[in-house]
Amino acid sequence: MPNWLKQRAFLTPERPALYFGKKSWTFSQLYEEVQVYAAFLEQHGIKHGDYVGVLVKNTERAVFFIHALQQIGAVAVLLNHRLTSAELLWQLEDAQAKCVVYDPAFQPITEAFEGVHTINVATREHITGMQGRETFDLKEVCSVMYTSGTTGRPKGVLQTYGNHWWSATGSALNLGIHEQDCWICAVPLFHISGYSILIRSVVYGMAVRLYEQFDEQKINEGLQKGEGTIISVVSAMLKRMLDQLEGAYHPSFRCMLLGGGPAPKPLLEACTEKNIPVYQTYGMTETSSQIVTLSPEYSLSKLGSAGKPLFPCQLRIVGEEKEGEILVKGPNVTHGYLRREEANHESFSDGWFHTGDVGYLDEEGFLYVLDRRSDLIISGGENVYPAEIESVLLEHPIVAEAGVIGVSDEQWGQVPVAFIVVKERLHEEEVKAFCSERLAKYKCPSSIFIVEQLPRNAAKKLMRRELKVEYEKRQNK
Amino acid sequence: MPNWLKQRAFLTPERPALYFGKKSWTFSQLYEEVQVYAAFLEQHGIKHGDYVGVLVKNTERAVFFIHALQQIGAVAVLLNHRLTSAELLWQLEDAQAKCVVYDPAFQPITEAFEGVHTINVATREHITGMQGRETFDLKEVCSVMYTSGTTGRPKGVLQTYGNHWWSATGSALNLGIHEQDCWICAVPLFHISGYSILIRSVVYGMAVRLYEQFDEQKINEGLQKGEGTIISVVSAMLKRMLDQLEGAYHPSFRCMLLGGGPAPKPLLEACTEKNIPVYQTYGMTETSSQIVTLSPEYSLSKLGSAGKPLFPCQLRIVGEEKEGEILVKGPNVTHGYLRREEANHESFSDGWFHTGDVGYLDEEGFLYVLDRRSDLIISGGENVYPAEIESVLLEHPIVAEAGVIGVSDEQWGQVPVAFIVVKERLHEEEVKAFCSERLAKYKCPSSIFIVEQLPRNAAKKLMRRELKVEYEKRQNK
Repeated sequence: MPNWLKQRAFLTPERPALYFGKKSWTFSQLYEEVQVYAAFLEQHGIKHGDYVGVLVKNTERAVFFIHALQQIGAVAVLLNHRLTSAELLWQLEDAQAKCVVYDPAFQPITEAFEGVHTINVATREHITGMQGRETFDLKEVCSVMYTSGTTGRPKGVLQTYGNHWWSATGSALNLGIHEQDCWICAVPLFHISGYSILIRSVVYGMAVRLYEQFDEQKINEGLQKGEGTIISVVSAMLKRMLDQLEGAYHPSFRCMLLGGGPAPKPLLEACTEKNIPVYQTYGMTETSSQIVTLSPEYSLSKLGSAGKPLFPCQLRIVGEEKEGEILVKGPNVTHGYLRREEANHESFSDGWFHTGDVGYLDEEGFLYVLDRRSDLIISGGENVYPAEIESVLLEHPIVAEAGVIGVSDEQWGQVPVAFIVVKERLHEEEVKAFCSERLAKYKCPSSIFIVEQLPRNAAKKLMRRELKVEYEKRQNK
Repeated sequence: MPNWLKQRAFLTPERPALYFGKKSWTFSQLYEEVQVYAAFLEQHGIKHGDYVGVLVKNTERAVFFIHALQQIGAVAVLLNHRLTSAELLWQLEDAQAKCVVYDPAFQPITEAFEGVHTINVATREHITGMQGRETFDLKEVCSVMYTSGTTGRPKGVLQTYGNHWWSATGSALNLGIHEQDCWICAVPLFHISGYSILIRSVVYGMAVRLYEQFDEQKINEGLQKGEGTIISVVSAMLKRMLDQLEGAYHPSFRCMLLGGGPAPKPLLEACTEKNIPVYQTYGMTETSSQIVTLSPEYSLSKLGSAGKPLFPCQLRIVGEEKEGEILVKGPNVTHGYLRREEANHESFSDGWFHTGDVGYLDEEGFLYVLDRRSDLIISGGENVYPAEIESVLLEHPIVAEAGVIGVSDEQWGQVPVAFIVVKERLHEEEVKAFCSERLAKYKCPSSIFIVEQLPRNAAKKLMRRELKVEYEKRQNK
């Protein structure tokens, strides 16, 4: 398959590729910039097949570096800059990354990366660009993103060029491709939600309007002026946009792609009132973005449903009753986790990926997700895994047992709260301080409850549902 | 990969799939019909992997049968009903076809198929439909279409599900996909130009408006009423449409896909005047439809160019000078000809397909095709191969040598004319009669010239270019 960006720059050199702030680049200009960045990375010794940490903000440079790594054939290990240095260092070591490309804003984080070769993206020199490689191999790994399951340490999800290709074309077959499309990216590029927009851009020949951070006022203004036709959001973002919105979006705006868990009914109703076409979607890092999507005509009649699979994908529920674990299959689904034989053995069977999520299908085949990855907490669009917080809590010498659940929160959608059993007297503020040294801010429990014991089933497995009941009780007191 | 039609009927059951005459079918209705036709074929003993001749007109039944064969996993050998019984029988034997599905209109042709099991499509009973298979394997052969090279007998081009898939998605990445798209099919379903529209329909979830035959008045009326957004044509069709057209097409009409060789400048200029967006395209049976396309903005500035490759495809010119043989590569390109080891050896190297066509690339990479398959004659959109006519001429006991070329013709674009060397006195009308018994009408030479000798190079290879010069001389006398 031809090198995507190079082919795109050859086929439609003059089409707009990227808007960022007041600047813009055509595909031909983008490719030129990327060639220079690729030469810069080569000077730093980065070669085909190397794993390279990418710790960047949503800026034009991030776009250039991400493409430059593809030009070289180096694997991008996309790092979440909200994590602590310790968490990131663990991921870099796990991925056996050769070096880290970082945005100068994150120098404080990288300073703690002892023994890791770091490259400040701002030090890119004006050198002659390198020729991108001729072809991309769809079987080759393109990117790695870390995700935590319900147990243990985060796992690196391997995303091949083929996974990204099929994700982009599967999405196109669902949402269509219009000549004037421009996809607004106000979600992080290190998440699959943002990264996948860059892929679609080169595959479709479509412009991306990149925002450094989500700002509902700016985005609303842009959408009213017709500066974007599609945007990827999570519920919390959509709510803020609606709260701020006066009037209607430009008629060319055609798709509000809403991910990150089921949306509340009033939000969807408000969108219908304002004629905003909401496509609810279900996807994850392992499926390289969307895999199930609900089109706007079903937005209310199939309320709470995530919809039907993308054209090349399949869906199955496995369980003794109607409800069961959601299994997905498709060429956009990862082949596995980086060096996690056991997890791969557990998560894949016969080409089907076990999502760990629980759901059911209605008579017409619409998917309803009941419990996103059972215990997963989605806070402000970020995945927060109870097991990870629990394992940090258990590192505290006085904590005997720990159980974490997500609870509703007006601002963040959900936040984690913790229940702990202690060996001796301990103040909850002390535990909070302990967490904030070890965990990203959004992972730190907003409340900590000290209890006599944790609800467990016969197999001694923590019953998080019981904790939720317990939490409700305490709230109603 | 999920069974395409089944998946489409599941994902978007209510969307229009097919319009024919005054009738229409949604994808759900189409799938139901197809299931019945598949059951009917099964009753006739057709199984997965069987090769089945398809001799049909452009009617709804042809669509049902074509899909039904895919449901069973039988390979459709698409037969050109303009060929003679003898030509068709040869193809059926070459393909080792188990049987032939035919339209009652073609009974006279099939009566000559001695020893071949034939199935009249009109005898389909009202039986319970069969369940289509769950998945399609992209590596599996889906269809076979016969094409003649410059030498010898026609060759069966193997088209896999993957070839068709990549052709459909490659086309979408170039032309876009709009929700309201409807592709008008007034080209034969047994040609890749027509067959590929059926594939795009299920892959995109797009309606097809099928015409039994090309009628410029009806098509123009339809396009003015907004009954179609895209249409596939060849120059001869487009000319007739323009000659008949009064007023403009509906604003939703967005693509006139023009294949079958370079278009004359006055035709393109007339289209520009009438605001008709013409996409010129270069493709062949071996590339499962388009592989190089010129978008309308270049229609005049790059006059005579076929454009640039589709996104997943590559293009190369091989020769000692700027001009040379056109080589193409891409996932839509056939893996080879059915049981033609030698031809496959000659036509494929390192994944590149040698088209046999001659052309060059300009500085910006636009392709110019100079000689379509060197000697190929395109008459009324049909490929006519000189070598095939020559071999028939040589069957005549008094003909010693034969050379066929294509010459311009107002009505058909091109027609074949023949030069022959005779052993004894022979009248040209006698030769014409001999041809019309053995060749489809459009292949019969419109003129036959008896000459002393044929121009040949040192290697005794016929120099057809010299024949063209000779023909011009005779015209100017």
